[in-house]
Formats: sequence, C-alpha cells, structure tokens
Amino acid sequence: MFMHNKRLQYTVRVSEPNPRLACMIMEQFGGADGELAAAMRYFTQGLGEDDMGRKDMLLDIATEELSHLEVVGSIVTMLNKGLKAQLAEGQMKEAELYLMVGASGTTAKESILFGGAPALCDSAGVPWTAAYVDSRGEPTVDLRSNIAAEARAKIVYERLINITDDPGVKDALGFLMTREIAHQKSFEKALYAIEHNFPTGKLPGVEKFASMYVNTSQGEGDANGPWNSGDEWDRVDDLEEVMPADGGDGTATVKLAAKDMKVVAKMGERTLSDPASDPTTGADIGAGPGAGRTKNGDMGGAANINEAPAQAEAAARKKTSKAKSR
Amino acid sequence: MFMHNKRLQYTVRVSEPNPRLACMIMEQFGGADGELAAAMRYFTQGLGEDDMGRKDMLLDIATEELSHLEVVGSIVTMLNKGLKAQLAEGQMKEAELYLMVGASGTTAKESILFGGAPALCDSAGVPWTAAYVDSRGEPTVDLRSNIAAEARAKIVYERLINITDDPGVKDALGFLMTREIAHQKSFEKALYAIEHNFPTGKLPGVEKFASMYVNTSQGEGDANGPWNSGDEWDRVDDLEEVMPADGGDGTATVKLAAKDMKVVAKMGERTLSDPASDPTTGADIGAGPGAGRTKNGDMGGAANINEAPAQAEAAARKKTSKAKSR
Amino acid sequence: MFMHNKRLQYTVRVSEPNPRLACMIMEQFGGADGELAAAMRYFTQGLGEDDMGRKDMLLDIATEELSHLEVVGSIVTMLNKGLKAQLAEGQMKEAELYLMVGASGTTAKESILFGGAPALCDSAGVPWTAAYVDSRGEPTVDLRSNIAAEARAKIVYERLINITDDPGVKDALGFLMTREIAHQKSFEKALYAIEHNFPTGKLPGVEKFASMYVNTSQGEGDANGPWNSGDEWDRVDDLEEVMPADGGDGTATVKLAAKDMKVVAKMGERTLSDPASDPTTGADIGAGPGAGRTKNGDMGGAANINEAPAQAEAAARKKTSKAKSR
Amino acid sequence: MFMHNKRLQYTVRVSEPNPRLACMIMEQFGGADGELAAAMRYFTQGLGEDDMGRKDMLLDIATEELSHLEVVGSIVTMLNKGLKAQLAEGQMKEAELYLMVGASGTTAKESILFGGAPALCDSAGVPWTAAYVDSRGEPTVDLRSNIAAEARAKIVYERLINITDDPGVKDALGFLMTREIAHQKSFEKALYAIEHNFPTGKLPGVEKFASMYVNTSQGEGDANGPWNSGDEWDRVDDLEEVMPADGGDGTATVKLAAKDMKVVAKMGERTLSDPASDPTTGADIGAGPGAGRTKNGDMGGAANINEAPAQAEAAARKKTSKAKSR
Amino acid sequence: MFMHNKRLQYTVRVSEPNPRLACMIMEQFGGADGELAAAMRYFTQGLGEDDMGRKDMLLDIATEELSHLEVVGSIVTMLNKGLKAQLAEGQMKEAELYLMVGASGTTAKESILFGGAPALCDSAGVPWTAAYVDSRGEPTVDLRSNIAAEARAKIVYERLINITDDPGVKDALGFLMTREIAHQKSFEKALYAIEHNFPTGKLPGVEKFASMYVNTSQGEGDANGPWNSGDEWDRVDDLEEVMPADGGDGTATVKLAAKDMKVVAKMGERTLSDPASDPTTGADIGAGPGAGRTKNGDMGGAANINEAPAQAEAAARKKTSKAKSR
Amino acid sequence: MFMHNKRLQYTVRVSEPNPRLACMIMEQFGGADGELAAAMRYFTQGLGEDDMGRKDMLLDIATEELSHLEVVGSIVTMLNKGLKAQLAEGQMKEAELYLMVGASGTTAKESILFGGAPALCDSAGVPWTAAYVDSRGEPTVDLRSNIAAEARAKIVYERLINITDDPGVKDALGFLMTREIAHQKSFEKALYAIEHNFPTGKLPGVEKFASMYVNTSQGEGDANGPWNSGDEWDRVDDLEEVMPADGGDGTATVKLAAKDMKVVAKMGERTLSDPASDPTTGADIGAGPGAGRTKNGDMGGAANINEAPAQAEAAARKKTSKAKSR
Repeated sequence: MFMHNKRLQYTVRVSEPNPRLACMIMEQFGGADGELAAAMRYFTQGLGEDDMGRKDMLLDIATEELSHLEVVGSIVTMLNKGLKAQLAEGQMKEAELYLMVGASGTTAKESILFGGAPALCDSAGVPWTAAYVDSRGEPTVDLRSNIAAEARAKIVYERLINITDDPGVKDALGFLMTREIAHQKSFEKALYAIEHNFPTGKLPGVEKFASMYVNTSQGEGDANGPWNSGDEWDRVDDLEEVMPADGGDGTATVKLAAKDMKVVAKMGERTLSDPASDPTTGADIGAGPGAGRTKNGDMGGAANINEAPAQAEAAARKKTSKAKSR
Repeated sequence: MFMHNKRLQYTVRVSEPNPRLACMIMEQFGGADGELAAAMRYFTQGLGEDDMGRKDMLLDIATEELSHLEVVGSIVTMLNKGLKAQLAEGQMKEAELYLMVGASGTTAKESILFGGAPALCDSAGVPWTAAYVDSRGEPTVDLRSNIAAEARAKIVYERLINITDDPGVKDALGFLMTREIAHQKSFEKALYAIEHNFPTGKLPGVEKFASMYVNTSQGEGDANGPWNSGDEWDRVDDLEEVMPADGGDGTATVKLAAKDMKVVAKMGERTLSDPASDPTTGADIGAGPGAGRTKNGDMGGAANINEAPAQAEAAARKKTSKAKSR
Repeated sequence: MFMHNKRLQYTVRVSEPNPRLACMIMEQFGGADGELAAAMRYFTQGLGEDDMGRKDMLLDIATEELSHLEVVGSIVTMLNKGLKAQLAEGQMKEAELYLMVGASGTTAKESILFGGAPALCDSAGVPWTAAYVDSRGEPTVDLRSNIAAEARAKIVYERLINITDDPGVKDALGFLMTREIAHQKSFEKALYAIEHNFPTGKLPGVEKFASMYVNTSQGEGDANGPWNSGDEWDRVDDLEEVMPADGGDGTATVKLAAKDMKVVAKMGERTLSDPASDPTTGADIGAGPGAGRTKNGDMGGAANINEAPAQAEAAARKKTSKAKSR
Repeated sequence: MFMHNKRLQYTVRVSEPNPRLACMIMEQFGGADGELAAAMRYFTQGLGEDDMGRKDMLLDIATEELSHLEVVGSIVTMLNKGLKAQLAEGQMKEAELYLMVGASGTTAKESILFGGAPALCDSAGVPWTAAYVDSRGEPTVDLRSNIAAEARAKIVYERLINITDDPGVKDALGFLMTREIAHQKSFEKALYAIEHNFPTGKLPGVEKFASMYVNTSQGEGDANGPWNSGDEWDRVDDLEEVMPADGGDGTATVKLAAKDMKVVAKMGERTLSDPASDPTTGADIGAGPGAGRTKNGDMGGAANINEAPAQAEAAARKKTSKAKSR
Repeated sequence: MFMHNKRLQYTVRVSEPNPRLACMIMEQFGGADGELAAAMRYFTQGLGEDDMGRKDMLLDIATEELSHLEVVGSIVTMLNKGLKAQLAEGQMKEAELYLMVGASGTTAKESILFGGAPALCDSAGVPWTAAYVDSRGEPTVDLRSNIAAEARAKIVYERLINITDDPGVKDALGFLMTREIAHQKSFEKALYAIEHNFPTGKLPGVEKFASMYVNTSQGEGDANGPWNSGDEWDRVDDLEEVMPADGGDGTATVKLAAKDMKVVAKMGERTLSDPASDPTTGADIGAGPGAGRTKNGDMGGAANINEAPAQAEAAARKKTSKAKSR
Repeated sequence: MFMHNKRLQYTVRVSEPNPRLACMIMEQFGGADGELAAAMRYFTQGLGEDDMGRKDMLLDIATEELSHLEVVGSIVTMLNKGLKAQLAEGQMKEAELYLMVGASGTTAKESILFGGAPALCDSAGVPWTAAYVDSRGEPTVDLRSNIAAEARAKIVYERLINITDDPGVKDALGFLMTREIAHQKSFEKALYAIEHNFPTGKLPGVEKFASMYVNTSQGEGDANGPWNSGDEWDRVDDLEEVMPADGGDGTATVKLAAKDMKVVAKMGERTLSDPASDPTTGADIGAGPGAGRTKNGDMGGAANINEAPAQAEAAARKKTSKAKSR
C-alpha cells in the first residue's frame, strides 16, 4: 500500500517562470525515460516477483521514482505558475498571451490543453505510453533493462542540466540524475547476485550460432574489435556461407493440404502478372502524350530541379492536353 | 547502401498451416522486442556513430536483424498460406472461414485487414511503434540498451520455442534466439571496450546521493542484499531524513513578478473551495432523498455485492423519487 | 513524497489460476478507466493545484488509486502464477503450453511478451496511454472529469464482477468498485464547494447561443425532453435558421495580401479540374473494355453478391482482355 | 443518415493568414477535447442507445459537433491559405518559406506533411486517437462523461479566445465555446431525468467502504472539507487500519495445483538471488578500479555537478584504466 | 537476406549544421510518408507475394527505400553534428545550448531525448507507427496503395526542397524525390500488368449501387463533373430516395431470444429517461440561484465575450450564493 | 453544415446476436480502412480544397461515409444487443456471461470497457488513430490516396462478406462494399479530369534518375516485367554503379565551425572504443567461469535446443559459481 507526505524528496526552488524550459523538463515527467516509465517498470516487476529480496528492492525503487515524478512535476508547475494564472484569468492582452504560450508545438499544447498544469507528455507534447515499459517477467532480463533504463535517464538529466541556468532547477536535476546512478548500481548488484545470469532464461542456444559473427556490412569502413574478432568468434566474411546459415536452400516452404493448394493456384491465376505486357498506365494517362519517357519518349530538357522549368513545361502541357482528355 | 538476395539467412520449413501460431510469432515481427525494433535500434545508432569500429558493428548487426525480420515474416507467411488463399478466393463455406480466421482479436485483424500477409503488429494486433526504439545518442548508454534488448528478444524467442511443436518452426526460432545471444556478447564487448563507461555520460553526480539507498517500501518483507547493504551503501530507513534529502523544507517555490502574483491570487479567489460548506451535490440529487448516507441517511441493508439487493433497492427508489425530480 | 508498505490495501485470495480472467482484469490495470489512469489524473491535478484543501484531497485519492493499482496487479499476478512458471521453465509439452497461453490476442501477448507478469495493457493488449488522462488545469472542469472517471471505473468493475465467479476475486473487485463510489462523492463535494462552478472557467458565453437547442437530427424518432424543451430552451427546428447562426453568409473567408492571392490563383490553375471532360481513367483501363458501366457499358447480370458470378465474369474477362493490355 | 449543406453553421471571417495560430486552433480540430472527439463520443452513444429521447438528443448534438468540426477546420484553412499556395507553387525564396513554415514542431508538420490543409492533429502535431472517446454504454455514466467533456471543451475555447486578437476568429470561437455551455446543460438535464442515477450502474457497493475516506497523504498541508469530513464520512487517519481494509493479512495468494507449485519452486531456484553475495558488477568494471565507492572506494572530490570535475576525473581514469581492460 | 555497404546510394554534402532543418527532414525519416514506411510497405508485401515478378520488384524497391532511409538519416546526422557534440560535452554556456536545442517541440526532444542522433519521429516529434503501412495482402489493392504512397512521398520531398537553401541537402532531396517518381511508374506498370484489376478483389458488387452517385452535400456550391454526371452515373439528388437505398424502412433490427428481450426491457426501465420531468441539475446548482436561464432566469447583460463582464457577474454571484450552498 | 435523419442509408436486418462477429465488423467502424477513416480523409480534403467541383464531390462522399459509419455501427449494435443487456443487468450466471464476453482480446474489451456499444476500435481492439488519414493537401496526390483507400475498403468488406453467413448482415455489407467501388470510380474521374497529374506536384524530377531501375534484390528469383524492363527503363544490375548514384564518394559530410570540430574530437576521445582490447564483460561474469566460449572456453555439449540440457547445465553451474561470486 502506498502512503504520501506532502513534503517533496527534494526542495524545489525556481528562480523565475519559464514555460519553455518547463516543456523541455516534461521529457522526464511524461517522456520515454521519464520518472513514470521508471516507476512503472519497477512496480510491475515488483508485483510479479517471487524472490523476496528483489521484490523489496523493486518496490523501494519504484516508490522512490514516484517521488521523483512528484519533484519533476513540481518543477514544471513552478516554471508555469505565472502563465497558468494569466491564461486562466485573461488579464493580459491577447497578443502578449499569444507570445507567452509559445505559438505552436509543445508549449501551445501545454498551455491551451493543459492550462499550464503538469501533463504526462514528453518535450514534444506526445502522450506517455506504456510501450516505454519493457518489463518481461524474467529477472535476468528485467534487471538488464533496468540498468539500461537508468543509464538512459541519467543522460537525459545530464542534457537538461547542460541547458539550464536556473540554479535551483539545476540543483534539483542534479539530485535526480545522481539517484539514477545509485539505482543503476543497485540493479547491477541484483543482476550479478543471480549466479548464472547469462545467457538469460533457460535454453542455452545452438552452439555453433552463438559465437558466429556475420560481417553483413562490408566495404570501406570495415573494422575489427573484440566484438567480432579473436578466439571467441567465428567470423563470416563470405556472406554466401550464411545464405542460409543452415544446410538448406534458403527458401520458405509449407506443406499444404490439397484443397488449399488448389485455391492457392486459383488466386495465383486471378492476380497473375503478365511480364511480357507493356500496359498503358494511369501515370501514362496522367503525364500526357508528350510528357516524355514515362511511356516511350524523353523528359525534355527541364529536368534540373535547381532551375525553374515549370513555365516551359506548363506551356508544353497546354499544347498537348486537349488531344488526350476526353 | 543495402542489397538483398532472395535466399533467406535460415531455411524455413513449416509442417502445416497454423494461423493462430502465426499471430503469436508476429510478436517478433511487429512487437516490442521484435526484429524491426532491433534493426532500427542499431541502424539509428550506426548512422549517428562517429567511432568507426562501433559504427561498423552496429550496421553489421542492424543488417542481420533485417534478415531475421525476413525469416520471421516468412514463417508467418507460410503459416498463413492456406488461410490467405481461402479468404481471397471465397471457396469455403462462410461458417468454415469464420472459424478459420479466429472470430476476433489478432487473428481476425490479421485475416480481415491484412489478408493473411505478414503485418507489423504484435501478437495482440497492436501496430509497431518507434516508441520501442530506445537509442539515445550516447554509446555507453546505447550499448546497455542494446544488451538489454537482446536479452529481452532472447527470452521472447525462448517462450515461443516452448509453445511450438512444429519442428521446422522450432528449428528456425532456435537459430534466431541463438543469434540474440551472440549479439548480446558483441554489444557487451563493445561496451567494455570503452574504458570508463560508468557512470554514463560525463557529469559525475553528487557524491552523497550516489551511494544512498532509500528504503521506501517498508513493513513485512523488508530484505537486505548487496543492492542496499554493505560498505558501498548509505542506507536510509527513517524516511523523515529524506523529506527532503537536501537541507530545505521540501516545498516547491518560484519567485513571481508582482503582476503574476496578483493574477495568481485572483485565480485562487475565483476557484476558492469553501471547506466549511456542506453543499448538495449532483450525486445527492442522483441518489434520491432516501438513498442513504450519500447525503444524510443510511445505505440500508442492501450493500453486499454478493447478494442481490437490486430489487429491494429499486422498490425503495420508486417511493422516493417522484418527490424529488421535477 | 511517497512511501510504501508491502501489505496490500485489500487482501487478495484467488481460488485458482485463470490466465484468461487475468487478461480481462488487466482492463483495470492498464486500461482507459483503470487505476493508473485514475492515479495519474488526480496526481497531475494535485501537483498543479493551489487550493490547499483540494490539493490534499487530490493527493489522498491519487495515492489510494496507486494502492488499488497494486491490488489489481496482485490479482493478475496470482491468476497467472502457474502459467508464468510453466512458460519460464518449459516443463510442459509444447502443445499444452500453447493451449494455456491462449493462442492469440491479449493472452498470447501477456504470456509471450510479458511472461505472465502484470503489464500496463488493457484487456485487448493495447498499451496504456496518457491520452486517457483528461486533467485540464481548471478545478471546475477537472472535478467534473473526475466525477465522470469514477463513474466509468465503477461500471467497469461492475461488469468484471458480473463475469467472475471466483469468490476471492469478486470480493476484492467489490471493494475496488465501492471505493470508486466513495471517490465520486468526494469529488462531487469538492465541485459544489466552489460557489459558482457553472459555466466553467471565466468567460460567460454569448447569451443567445447558450440556450439554443438545434434539432439537427430529424425524421421519425424526434423526441422532446427537458434537454431540448421548456422555458430554458430556444429550440431551432428549421435548420436554415442556423445556416449560419450569425447574420453572415455562412462562408469562410480570409483577407490575403496581393502576392498570396496571385499564387493562390496559380495553384488553382495548375490543379484545375475540367468539369466538362470525360477522361479515361485507371479504373477504366483496369476494368477492361467489356467490363460494363465503369466506362460506358453494362455490368452484366452477375452483380448479385449472394450468388456466384465469379466464373462467368472471369470468362467474360478472358475474352476481352487481350485486346486491351499491351 | 447524414446530409450536408455547404454553408457553415457560423460565418468565418479571418483578418489575415497566421499559420501559427492555425496550429494552436487545431487543438479543437484534432485534439483531445476537439470537435471530432465530441462528435464521436455522442455518435457512438447515440447508436447504442435504446431510450428514444436520449438517442435523439445524442444524434442531434453529435451532428452539430460535426458542423463545429467544419467551422474549426475552415478557420484553420483560412489561416493557412497563403502558406499553402506559397509552399505548393514554390514562388518564394527558400529561406522565406523556411521561416514561414515555422522551422520545426507542429507548424513544420502541418506545412510539410499536410501542405497547410486542416489535419486531425492537436496543437503539438499528435494525431487524434479514439482513446479520447470515453463512451461506456451505460447512460448514467456516459452522460457524466459528456458533461465533463463539454466542460473541458469550453475551457479550451476560452483559452484560445484569450490568446487570439483576430476579431473574426475570436467571434467564431465565442460561438463554439457557448455551444459547449448549451450542450452541457442538455446533458445535465438528461442525466437528472433518470431518476436514480447514482451510484451508476446497478450494483450498490459494499456499505462500509462507500463512506470511508482514507487520509493517504499526510504531513503538513492536511486539510478538511466536505469531501472528507462531516457525518457522511468515516475517515481513516491511521493507515494501519486499512493495511488491509478487510480482516485479512494484506497478502496476495492463489491456490496452485501440485504440478504448478513444483515448477514455481524450480523457477525460484533458477533465478535465486544470493543476498549474502557481494558480486562484482558490470558497473564496477565500467567505473574502473580507482573510480570510487561504486565498488569499495570513494568518489573523490569531483562530485559537484555545478563545478567542472571532468578533466581531473579523466586524468584519474587514464592512470587506472590500463590495469583493468585486457 | 540483406547485405550492406557503408557507402551511401547518394553522396551527402551538408554546408553547415542546422538542427531545425534536421527536424523538418525527419518527416521523411520517421514520418507517415517517410522512407521507413515505404520500405516496410513493400517489404511486407514482398514477403507475402507469390507472383515471382511482383515479389522481385517489391523486394528491389523495399531494399532501395532502406538505402534512402540511410541517406535521409545521414543528412539529419550531419545537420546535427555540432549540436550533438556540444550537448554531450557541455562546453558551451547553458543559455547558448538552450537556444541551440530550440526550447521546445521537436527540436527539444530530438536534442534532449535523442542527443541529436537520427530518430524515427516525424517533424513534430511523433514516433513512427506501423499504422502508416497500408499493405492488405491483395496485389490489385496494394499496388494502388503503393502508387498513392509514392505520390505522397514525392510531394513531401518537393515541399522540403522548396524550403531548403543548402545546395547539398537540396541536391540529395532532389535525388530522393525523383526516385519516388520512378517507383510510382514501376508500381503503375505492375498494376496494369494484371489484366482485370478493377474492381479489386473478386466480388463484383451489386450492380445498381455501383453507378449511383449520392449528392449528399447540397446548397450553394453544388457542382457537376465527370465524377457525378454523365451516362455512367445514376445520380440521386432527392436524398429521401436513399433513406434507405434498399426497399426497407431504414431501421436496424435484430431477432432476440425471449430471455434477452426480457433483460433488454429491464435495462430500459432501469435507465428510463423521464421526458416530462424538469429536474434540477448539477449545472443549476453550480450556476447559483440568480445565474440566469440555466434554470429559469436570464443571463443578464454580460454575455458579450469581447467585453469584460467578469466583475459585474462576480458581484451578482456573491449576493446569491450564500442562500444556496449549505 | 451537417444534418441528420434517423433513418439509415441501408436497412439493417440482423438474424441473431453474435458478439464475435460484431468485433470483426468493427474493423470497418474503427479500423484503418473503416468508414471513419474514409469520412475524415475526404472531409479534411474538402475543407482545404479551392476547386469548387472537387470540393463538392469530396463533401458529398465524406458525408456519405458518415452514413456508412452509422450503418456499420448499427450492425455492431444489433449483434451485441443481447450481450449488452445481459452484462448490464447481471441476470445470467457469471460463468455464462464470462463465456459470452469471450474471455480475452477484443470481445472482452468490447464487452467490459464499452459495454457492448459500438466503439471506434478495430477488430483487435486497437483505438482508431488519425495516422490512418493520409490527406496531403495536393489534389493529384490526395485523389490517388483516395483511390487506394477505396480499393482497400472494398477488399476488407469482401473478406467480411466471405466469412458472414447472416443474410441480413451480408446484404448490408454488400451495399457498403459496392459503394466503395462507386467512390473509387468518382475519384478516378476527378484525378484524370486534372490534365497533367503526373508527376504529382510541380517539380519535374531529375531526368536521369526518373527512369532508372535499381535491381537491388538479386539472386535466384530475379525477374523481368514492364516495371523494370523495356525502353522506358535504365536498369542498373551492377550495384557498384549506384554506390553512389552521383559522382561523389558516397559519404556524408558537413562543414563544421572550428569550435564544433574541437568538441566533436573531444566527444570522440571520451567514448573511444579500444579495438585491441579484450575486456571482461558483464556477460562473462554472468556466464560463470566454466560457461564456455562466452569468454574463452566451450559451450559444452548442451547446446541443442531440442534436447533438454537444463539439468546438466545447472549441475555444472552449481560447481563453478561459488568461486566467482563474492
């Protein structure tokens, strides 16, 4: 069960209103790596977890992330406080308010739709979606996702710190960023406290494919590194070898019942493409008789997009069009 | 630049059509941890990467994931091949086709909207979204996301393998699962080939908050582990200590200009809540005069949802209602 | 700041696993009217609220909704507990597991992607989106949205209760449903504790349009009621009167600068439609010369979709097609 | 069946083009509280309604909302008229057009993707989604949702009016805003014309939980009001009382079959977390041997994010790194 | 199977960084008509296609679109190259960086969340969704969708060209735009190489409805053209004729079993609307006794939204409110 | 302005309730090719159109599509009528209702969330999104999109007809399908009534790239057809020729200012990958010392996923784990 105290986990001291900065910081309120995503990632894992130690840790950190969500939302609220009242009370000139709400994009939505209150949208005004939550119900997998998520959240806070010069906001963002570092460390500990955590899950994989590196992108820029070279790797440079990687012919087949085969054939006939045809097409009609190689002519001299062929072409079109459309 | 050969990276041998299994396997075609998500995660990172070694690796693996997308899509195509033709040609009785398309849910959408062709939806029919792609433009972050993503994809393949008894499908899924293991190893190597990769990014964090563990979830079930105990951690059990964690008062404040303060006050007055009032509400009206404690009465004896109080209550309502509505 | 205790707000006693019921109950975990939507609706309002009484109430109820989210998630976890382990450990026959995961749709996604852990998706497997959260930063508006939201959540629980015969699940759902009733009452009180709460906001509206009822849907079934009849209403039955409702001509106009007008004219010429033309179209080509009134013929006698005209038609097509395509 | 007349319900007189204002007004075209959401909310309810009076009202208002959608779309069209032609005909200098389309965000999308034509996106360029439509098939619920929706739409129009100084646009917005007031009144009448409309639905709820108020958020700022105090409420301040609210132990349990229990145990063993371990983690490796308390040291003096510790730290790293990576 | 070469299909020469232009060009990277949508449209069709000629063409063009995705992503990367490094290394003053990232909207998200790396979002920052992919598994349908999609992509490139004055970017965009023209031609040829491609699919339609044109929108502006006039069309101007178009009564009916009919009646009674009532509503309470015609009075003289009636009205409210709220 | 008559455009006669069929038919109510998508596609185009003839046609057809939306919604309503009442009144046994609502997936959502009323979701329960609407503000483009959209809608109706054996439903679906054919014909006429409609827009394209066909997918299955062969095409088989297609080197470059170059270099150093390293990774730690080639050993004999290596492997793990975790 959750409880709440109206004091924040970190004091928020904003120097002056700044609705545009508010919208940028909403990235950590309703964005992909924001605090709701973090809280919900660990909360859903915690509910589904049987191991008591991990369950406790997941609920500890999920709960703290909710408190962070509250801190971020409070920053947004303070940065918008003046705008919110002005917009609600309509005491300023329209043109001034228009400039204040930011004319279009996130700031407009944040003002017009949400009235300056904190909203679960990211810095572009896109609503939060649970598609961001990558809990998968297997601890050796989920802990890796958590480690990665904390790393992502850390870097987003770092970028926000880099662009903010309000010292109170910067200070609170610094706290939040640091907590992501601490959380990453906890999740790392929890991952490695599971003895065999790689490969994840239970099935070991097919041995010969587990150490194969396929050099799929070739040409200039091909490089070596510990990720594709050395004793651990069987590297494939000749791609024909993996077309296919097994001993088959690289096709896809299915055994169909006779009645299905007959209908498949029927469908094939109905939609048969005649490779020997040279059909007149809608584009041919649409281009007009003299319009060039679309059918069997030449596009003329007008084809450089950096010049201005439009008039000449239009003139050419004028001439030929009546003949055709009827 | 991409090139293509019509042979697959792995031969697909499906024993018999199975449109329901097709829909489940679509999880790895158009799902959150599917091959498109993988390909696009590494492709976007590869484009933005300056380090030539990592760029090459990212494009190698992105390209291979596209080939896996093709293998998965080919499995889906084969499993649907009979259904697709039957639905297109309408040669079966309606009732039989109705059963074949699966009545509702993913299989219905896959049949009716997509005609049995592979579609970028997950196993519940939800369209793929780039919200699944968590590339963030910082290699120490992105490589951790890649490691986690490969771990996730591995476990999803494992589950599909666990529920599939078509040996050809199982075989191909085994190849795909194993490649995720190999890719995870490559990304791990690439991460640790960057000397200082933790904390991610550049800012070090505030020291005292980087080793603090806040025991936010308490009560029975509280547990210790390397993630919250030992020399590395400053553990906070008394939550008052972090309300707030800094030396402030845990409130959120902003310095407003005089004109904003005046309008904020105005807004406060306009929407003032009178705590001493006891207003009649819409619910009071809606419940009716004798409807119990909603306003000033008692809900009666009918309140157990497991019994059937509806009639008695309805009778009670009948009596009282005319007096009121007019 | 949030705190947590690992005891639930209501004890969950599930009689036996039932993964399908679990998916249905996810409607209240990650669905439109589920507990996350409720918690986030009130939490975002609470953060943005200046009135101390309402702020306290909003945070009280937001926090309780998080505890309800936990109860619902715990029900889902229990209903899936067997499936989750079976899928993870792969100890059952594939065909049995295949049946257990439900073959396609939500149950498949819940099993294959989420491994049976609770996920923020609704009963169709659609991820939760903040588009469900309709907080707007004005209390007379938001409290009405809260009242409506509680009403919606109540009815969804009622439906779940109606289809559940596990007594422990039913009991917990009954608690949750009832709390929505209580919350609705709180929000009603808070709305009517604001003296003038209608019309919402500050602008009063244009008097003559505020009591006008436009009878836009006419014909049989036209009805009267207090919503369109009586002294309070100016009813418009002759729709010509409101084409337009003002004294104008019902068109849309803008004053353009000369240079814009010239270009608008130019665009008009370029894309001019010739109403007197009778062009041959792509459909004409595609239908073939004898294919009927598409161009200038007759569709033949085959047009009843309940019969089987396909063969005759195909024969007809055969004849005419060669003449045309080349 | 729907019919249409090309005259608008309200004359639109725009003073001059303003593509940025156009994008803000799109909030009411393709936004959460826009006219499409309104029309579809009432239309879906109307189709499913059996009560002839309510059905007629719902279709009346749904149809009028479509006419409002047309008015809003016409405003957007007029505000964009110059831009649309300029962009299509490419007669201006690139740099001028670039400024005109607004560089990025909604205005860029509206120009580049939609060519200045009205699009069903909100003021941030997010496509409309039916997730905004909260019809639930129960009139006592739906009418409350409609009341709330009209209240929301009213306030959004009010904000748009507050920022617009084009008198023709302001005038049309004033009409639209006022109609929301009128529609709210109709829906209120229809709600209260149902005798017993609270609690919604049919099940009455569990009596003792229907008047309980849980004071979940405590600490400074706790407040009283008619929503939590007075005869109608049983207020819970000691939260232990509702951990849980029933007589149980606040845990979640399920009765598992023996074979499931065995596998659950197996899964527990496989993913067992060793609480007594002190494992070396990926973060430990990534931080380097001298990197401080991540493992067993001290973070050094560099931890103030407001200073510039990067160089010193980098130097420190240099020294220690070779030892480790091999 | 896919292969890759690190050379691009077209050389990208960007004159100088321009993060705002980068975001606009993302429309063709992660937008509705962007290269990923194109690639996935043809790729999914190619996988499902049995006709060898069309399959080859679809995979040819799908593969080329992936190469275009790479070219567009490379343009975005180059335009962001300076910003990306500045943001990562934090060497500029916060206020300068703040201006560089663009304050809010797409540019903010592109900087803060994605760090300046190419992301699968459109020019408004909305993530790509497979909802853009309209493959339907029937070639006569899909080829038309492809033709339309190429037409759309062409015009979006044209608009980007019109606003770009960086010659290198313009040049690459010109190449990409032209390839859409070429691809449209290929798809047109493939469509018309199927002999009978209209109507699509197999069922011919009901003859009398296939040539009927319903003049649903009437009034001033009614126009004639080859789309509604001439021998091919049976035009309906009197809409009563198609209410309904069949010989029935235009209602919707279903035959219900007796037990269902009884419950339908029951539901009707429970939620019966009393058309003769004149209920007091929540809005009546909220407006206050003297607030005008909401219930039975007059709205006063304050109703012009362009004036400032708020104070007078507030005064009026003051007087009347105490009587009521208690 | 829109008007409405409560008679339908086509009489709906449903033989008996069938909630599962209802959900399938929702594909055309709230699905990608459903009637709302059609109506909104033409409506948004109509609003933005200047050509009076096309504007009239677009509004005619948009309005008719709204009437079709009503017909489809009425079918859904009738198919659900019994279920809706049963669920609302709770008169059936829970277990029976549970079966009736369909247990999970669309039917569950349609029942539990929407109460059996028509909802703007597709056959998988995914909410409608304006991402389906591909209007682009250029008539030669939009008309092609309309043609394609009608073709898609036609085929979806055909599939629904193929699986439906309720004659009344089939009859109404036949009407709706046929109207799509008629609408496609109108849009074709309107497209070809514009004289030069190809290439779309105004810029002609770069001549040499407009007739180039790149044979990107090679290997067995390469095929010829009018889409890549013949006088109209310059076919490229040797892909080196188009790496790149221009005379450049196929790289992406940007000219950076000196200060940016310096920071780019700095970022490069900070995140430098050491290609000569052989780092120990998290996976190495996680696999355990004897776990095989992950680091420098062999995966053992357990690697065949079709066998059951789990126990042996677990035993192996037991042995080696203690040594390592500490």
